Amino acid sequence: MAKNEKTAISPTRAEDYAEWYQQVVRAADLAETSPVRGCMVIKPWGYALWENIQREMDRMFKATGHKNAYFPLFIPKSFLEKEAEHVAGFAKECAVVTHHRLIEGPGGGLVVDPEAKLEEPLIVRPTSETIIGAAFSQWVQSYRDLPLLINQWANVVRWELRTRLFLRTSEFLWQEGHTAHATEAEARQETQQMLDVYATFAEDYMAMPVLKGPKTASERFPGAVETFAIEAMMQDKKALQAGTSHFLGQNFAKASEIKFQTKEETFEYAWTTSWGSSTRLVGGIIMTHSDDDGLIVPPRLAPAHIAIWPVFRGDEGKEKIVEYIQSFARELRDITLWGRPLEVEVDMRDIRGGEKQWEWVKKGVPVRIEIGPRDVDGGVVTVARRDRTPREKENLSRAEAPAKIRAILEDMQRGLFERARKFRDDNTREVNDYESLRRFFDKEGGGFALVHWDGTAESEAKFKDDFKATIRCIAQAPERAAAWGERMLEPGKCIVTGNPSPRRVVVARSY
Amino acid sequence: MAKNEKTAISPTRAEDYAEWYQQVVRAADLAETSPVRGCMVIKPWGYALWENIQREMDRMFKATGHKNAYFPLFIPKSFLEKEAEHVAGFAKECAVVTHHRLIEGPGGGLVVDPEAKLEEPLIVRPTSETIIGAAFSQWVQSYRDLPLLINQWANVVRWELRTRLFLRTSEFLWQEGHTAHATEAEARQETQQMLDVYATFAEDYMAMPVLKGPKTASERFPGAVETFAIEAMMQDKKALQAGTSHFLGQNFAKASEIKFQTKEETFEYAWTTSWGSSTRLVGGIIMTHSDDDGLIVPPRLAPAHIAIWPVFRGDEGKEKIVEYIQSFARELRDITLWGRPLEVEVDMRDIRGGEKQWEWVKKGVPVRIEIGPRDVDGGVVTVARRDRTPREKENLSRAEAPAKIRAILEDMQRGLFERARKFRDDNTREVNDYESLRRFFDKEGGGFALVHWDGTAESEAKFKDDFKATIRCIAQAPERAAAWGERMLEPGKCIVTGNPSPRRVVVARSY
Repeated sequence: MAKNEKTAISPTRAEDYAEWYQQVVRAADLAETSPVRGCMVIKPWGYALWENIQREMDRMFKATGHKNAYFPLFIPKSFLEKEAEHVAGFAKECAVVTHHRLIEGPGGGLVVDPEAKLEEPLIVRPTSETIIGAAFSQWVQSYRDLPLLINQWANVVRWELRTRLFLRTSEFLWQEGHTAHATEAEARQETQQMLDVYATFAEDYMAMPVLKGPKTASERFPGAVETFAIEAMMQDKKALQAGTSHFLGQNFAKASEIKFQTKEETFEYAWTTSWGSSTRLVGGIIMTHSDDDGLIVPPRLAPAHIAIWPVFRGDEGKEKIVEYIQSFARELRDITLWGRPLEVEVDMRDIRGGEKQWEWVKKGVPVRIEIGPRDVDGGVVTVARRDRTPREKENLSRAEAPAKIRAILEDMQRGLFERARKFRDDNTREVNDYESLRRFFDKEGGGFALVHWDGTAESEAKFKDDFKATIRCIAQAPERAAAWGERMLEPGKCIVTGNPSPRRVVVARSY
Repeated sequence: MAKNEKTAISPTRAEDYAEWYQQVVRAADLAETSPVRGCMVIKPWGYALWENIQREMDRMFKATGHKNAYFPLFIPKSFLEKEAEHVAGFAKECAVVTHHRLIEGPGGGLVVDPEAKLEEPLIVRPTSETIIGAAFSQWVQSYRDLPLLINQWANVVRWELRTRLFLRTSEFLWQEGHTAHATEAEARQETQQMLDVYATFAEDYMAMPVLKGPKTASERFPGAVETFAIEAMMQDKKALQAGTSHFLGQNFAKASEIKFQTKEETFEYAWTTSWGSSTRLVGGIIMTHSDDDGLIVPPRLAPAHIAIWPVFRGDEGKEKIVEYIQSFARELRDITLWGRPLEVEVDMRDIRGGEKQWEWVKKGVPVRIEIGPRDVDGGVVTVARRDRTPREKENLSRAEAPAKIRAILEDMQRGLFERARKFRDDNTREVNDYESLRRFFDKEGGGFALVHWDGTAESEAKFKDDFKATIRCIAQAPERAAAWGERMLEPGKCIVTGNPSPRRVVVARSY
């Protein structure tokens, strides 16, 4: 438990960022590792955050004309093999189902029944292009069936040896959009549209500023013609790729035979896209906003906006306090903010007030309210905001409190975004020679380096070899992102080779 | 396409019920089989129905204090083995992950990498008692941590050889509740509460009347002390088990070491429950309400409540018709019914009106509206209800139409329930001797037979051997279900042995 002089989370970000992250996840009760290698348990507070992400994203997908559907968990090996680059990208890290029965073994325990071997191994989906492609090839017959705009909410598995809760786990939850179009232009437009949806969601809901744009060839999704991503900066100045949108050309349509009859009665392969985002977003929220006292959640996605609890002094006026809290909570729940009623947790557990306070601090609830006998007598409520220091409190009159709390939540949502944007911009720098780049990453703590690059894989590889950094994206419209953005579009000379470069790219270490 | 004299679905229910079911699923575009053995693809219209089921159930679970969480897809073999009856129940039908990598084979294709064999096989969850139990054993330390009320929305896999869309598939979607309690009484109360939630959902939302009560020992969930179920009657008079709630006693707590310190500082095993319902509910909706023209969906769960389309006569007043439709659709969407805005599909596709009409009939949209030039001129709308014959239409004045359509939807919801209840009651009969029971199942089409039973497994087995029928449940409070219910509670003599029977039970063939 934190004392005056200490922080609630130990180590602090400055002391050990990676361990701080794990401790925040634990202290906020978001998730935990499981006895199953690489798989996490998402606990109620973490899952509620994911549900809020899901609900809002789902609304955005539906508003852009997409419909949800559900496809099999298993992909026959032969399906995965249909697109050569694709299978090469996933073969090394997939869970393979080979049998369909256990029987009693000679020792009494259960063993895999050798008689129940599958004719063809099934891969637990790492992504669903090939199995959805099989369905699309049936659904798409004529240009009238296009565009086909589908999304799936599902679990996927990519076998990972080194895992980190939310950021990299063998099983994770995600959504994957899959669309088919009659023309290249329309498919490209869809790819861009969904990239924009992700960017809007990240900024307006997660309060997490992002750069968006195409990845380089080496960072493309296996089988894609072009991959776009949104990239955010975490508080350790590393980049987090938080959503990707792929233009798949006709690669997967050819692999899965997604063909349609045109108006002119010719036959053509469809143009497809896919786009995904995952429980990794929860990791992004944690690392963008939280501090050394624990989780901070943007109010717009918070599992609860407000926690209220009583502080009793003996039995003095106990009943009155409880009534006061309950009528206040009811009034707060009648407030609609961002299209849903405020979520209020009334915490009546019989534990010490200090313990309770710190628990809600660590869980990141935006507004905390303690009600004691003096509050009741004075007709006030004592309010603490999670974006201020834990001991900073404000007295509001009971009558004005609901409206003011609403305003506090809106202010906090804006403030978290502005703080994160400032942090990102403060740690984004134009770097013009290779020695400065070395200093930037090795001595000065890194961040987003804006450098000129000649477009070759060789120059790109040097960033990785020398600094473990990669080109995160070729940011679109950077001039709208920040003051430094305008100069990103000026031509220059590659920081590695001195060859001409049409514009700057973003180089950073990443998750 | 249906003609006057023909039905839209062939065969009809009377001709071949099982095939009629498949054809309704196909004609309504709800789901299809996939190239992966036993796994289905849930198409947008079917998935939207499932989403509506999920949303409403989830609300009911949360209102009764449950929180959602997420646990691993994989269960280590040793976990499944912890509860002996449990593993015996699932070992024969489980998908086993044995390897975590594919490599290039000698022939060029990919093969399972023998070097990447898992130390312990992982079972794709058929249900999650054991893996959730492992988490609960950590989460529960003190009586203060109880009750622990968790729900999970997930996919599960039970290897099936004979599958039927929604009713029996190897992979299906479901929710599984898992709770832990300090006392037996509280756990039993929870088991009953969730059974009641399922019954309320089935009747109030699905418009599907159910009987509820304990199953006999032979029909219990593997490892449970007692299993309760809701049972509905389909139009072929077979029973559908549509949700189960299990009192697990301390069996799983002992297997998973879920122990807590009591107020008295002793240590005790917790009392646990689990309860589940699945995409099988979609099958229940289809088989309860649909007719020989296709799907009928209760309006409260319908993916869309209303479909509207124009009927043009050449170019005459085209623009006016489109405007009329759009303003009318806007007005309908402003109506809130059962807590959400009406969903309106405006169908502007360039296909023949007759084809369009039949498509919406087959998809089961509750209200269909065609707008032609005469409707616009007369200021009326022509409305057809899915619970009437396809050609029955009503003219409503434009001004009154929104309120009347709302009333039609409410009336349809009630009417579907009443019709289903009457069907069930008409096909429920007290049967008092074994020859009559034989006649009931073999000659008279079967249904729910209310018979006296002596409580032995031997007598129960005879129903299965002789009629492929089982005891569906020992209905609770049958006197509230129907007129015949009151007499169910009178004692009598077992229909098999003549031994004393305290009350009647429900015997039926089932899915």
